[in-house]
Amino acid sequence: MDCGRIAIFGGGSWATAIAKMVLEKVPNIVWYIRRPEQIDEFKRLEHNPSYLTSVRFDVSRITFSSDINTAVDTCDTLIFVTPSPYVKHHLRKLKRKLHDKHIITAIKGIIPDEDLVCSEYFRQIYNVPDENLAVIGGPSHAEEVALGRLTYLTIGSADKDFSRSFADLMGSSYVKTKTSDDVIGIEYSSVLKNVYAIAAGICNGLKYGDNFQSVLISNAVQEMDRFLRAVYPIERVIYDSVYLGDLLVTGYSNFSRNRVFGTMIGRGYSVKNAQIEMEMIAEGYYGTACMKRINKHFHVNMPILDAVYNILYERISPAIEIKLLTDSFR
Amino acid sequence: MDCGRIAIFGGGSWATAIAKMVLEKVPNIVWYIRRPEQIDEFKRLEHNPSYLTSVRFDVSRITFSSDINTAVDTCDTLIFVTPSPYVKHHLRKLKRKLHDKHIITAIKGIIPDEDLVCSEYFRQIYNVPDENLAVIGGPSHAEEVALGRLTYLTIGSADKDFSRSFADLMGSSYVKTKTSDDVIGIEYSSVLKNVYAIAAGICNGLKYGDNFQSVLISNAVQEMDRFLRAVYPIERVIYDSVYLGDLLVTGYSNFSRNRVFGTMIGRGYSVKNAQIEMEMIAEGYYGTACMKRINKHFHVNMPILDAVYNILYERISPAIEIKLLTDSFR
Repeated sequence: MDCGRIAIFGGGSWATAIAKMVLEKVPNIVWYIRRPEQIDEFKRLEHNPSYLTSVRFDVSRITFSSDINTAVDTCDTLIFVTPSPYVKHHLRKLKRKLHDKHIITAIKGIIPDEDLVCSEYFRQIYNVPDENLAVIGGPSHAEEVALGRLTYLTIGSADKDFSRSFADLMGSSYVKTKTSDDVIGIEYSSVLKNVYAIAAGICNGLKYGDNFQSVLISNAVQEMDRFLRAVYPIERVIYDSVYLGDLLVTGYSNFSRNRVFGTMIGRGYSVKNAQIEMEMIAEGYYGTACMKRINKHFHVNMPILDAVYNILYERISPAIEIKLLTDSFR
Repeated sequence: MDCGRIAIFGGGSWATAIAKMVLEKVPNIVWYIRRPEQIDEFKRLEHNPSYLTSVRFDVSRITFSSDINTAVDTCDTLIFVTPSPYVKHHLRKLKRKLHDKHIITAIKGIIPDEDLVCSEYFRQIYNVPDENLAVIGGPSHAEEVALGRLTYLTIGSADKDFSRSFADLMGSSYVKTKTSDDVIGIEYSSVLKNVYAIAAGICNGLKYGDNFQSVLISNAVQEMDRFLRAVYPIERVIYDSVYLGDLLVTGYSNFSRNRVFGTMIGRGYSVKNAQIEMEMIAEGYYGTACMKRINKHFHVNMPILDAVYNILYERISPAIEIKLLTDSFR
């Protein structure tokens, strides 16, 4: 199939990296960025003024828009890359239906209040059929895509034609792509890995060492596997790069916002002060609460999620909570 | 069962960490160190003169010996922690049989020329029965054990009583232990993880980024799993800390000799110059050749092992070999 005209929604670093990748293959795109000032600056500077500033764009190939309706109307394939807490806010302005569009989500989070992963949200709220939904997963620091460093992405969709077409479109000299039909599994694992990156940070902040970190990550993989089996029990190789690799690149990276956030918590910062200090909110903070609520329906044994939740939301001392966690590990 | 009197063989950092752990529980040990001068220095300084020098020992609780026969004669449980290339050399001086001893190997390597993991070597060459053999595995930088940082070890043996007794003996406030019956699997995985740490280093030296490293490690887990299934097909959770965790702590650590060695190779050093520069030989260098020979019997698809072998032994350019490897990854 032909992906048709492509729109990207979001102005952050991952949106910028995806725009770079898409523009390797298609002559032009529509790019929705909420703030007109950011668009003006982008056009003037010929790069995103705030993120991945080293990536130059030929702005004549980009139709910028701060109007979501224009962007949706003029395009066939819509790639959503806004942070999950803002998705609803953006879509609230939408005046048309989405069921006839192809929707690709690259949002590593859960829609707040709804407690739905993004594909479920578009399916349930916007009646987008399964075969029109896809997700981009895989271990991918946007900064490395910007540098053209080799990155492996997985495109998940119930429609093999769709995932194959979009995977082909995203492939390039520095991006290798494959397909999967595990949309839900990819989405949940990309939420959980942020929770586990916070856990890794907390342990780091508490001065647990590398020996323990590797045990934490090993247990995190098992916890992720248990949850995914409960939620969506298909044949799945959990140590595929889209699951394990994504967990590793986040859990072991000092550049991961979630890990840095966790480290500050482990060192004794309050949640509020850590957020102020970082000048941003780690997505895993919300992910933790969402996953905790969602797991109430599934009753999966998730001691790491529980520990992070207790630390972030119940104000239980990280030292005590992690000490308890260590007893549950094997 | 009672482990009886315990002897440790080897004077390196892992031997020193094991001595520290054992002495938490037993009043005294026999410690075989090859060079009498090192023993004299050890007694004078009350710490190992060369490794983990921060760990103080009550030397009145240690019976040092540079005579392997004395050490073997006077003890019931023998823990071998010498580097694998020297095991045969040490044992050559042995004048008595070993079949009535309990042998624990903490040697992360393969006996050269024999192409046997250590438990196989003691079984085949010294007729030590399966139920008298055990292995210590798990993610464990000796340096962190020295600092008393929480570490998880796995004791593998065909005899549950033996593994349980020794696991209890090794457990302490900073060491958590569990048991396993997968002796061969633990031994092979601890050899393979060094090969993969060299691969991670080579890619690091070639300036591949974190995105790719996580794909490499994900593929390494799968390659390890394939090999272990072929060699010893039992029920095994490959993302248990004794397999995946050990791979992670080595593959992601800048302190791993194997990773550092690989990084130098990736940057263009010859094998010889890298070894001179490091003033030591990375064990994975030998492990790579051994595993390559052993896999000739099993024909497992092991592209990472093959690539490392080609780079280290066939002098194929790292850039070319890794480029080919990237095409085989998923």
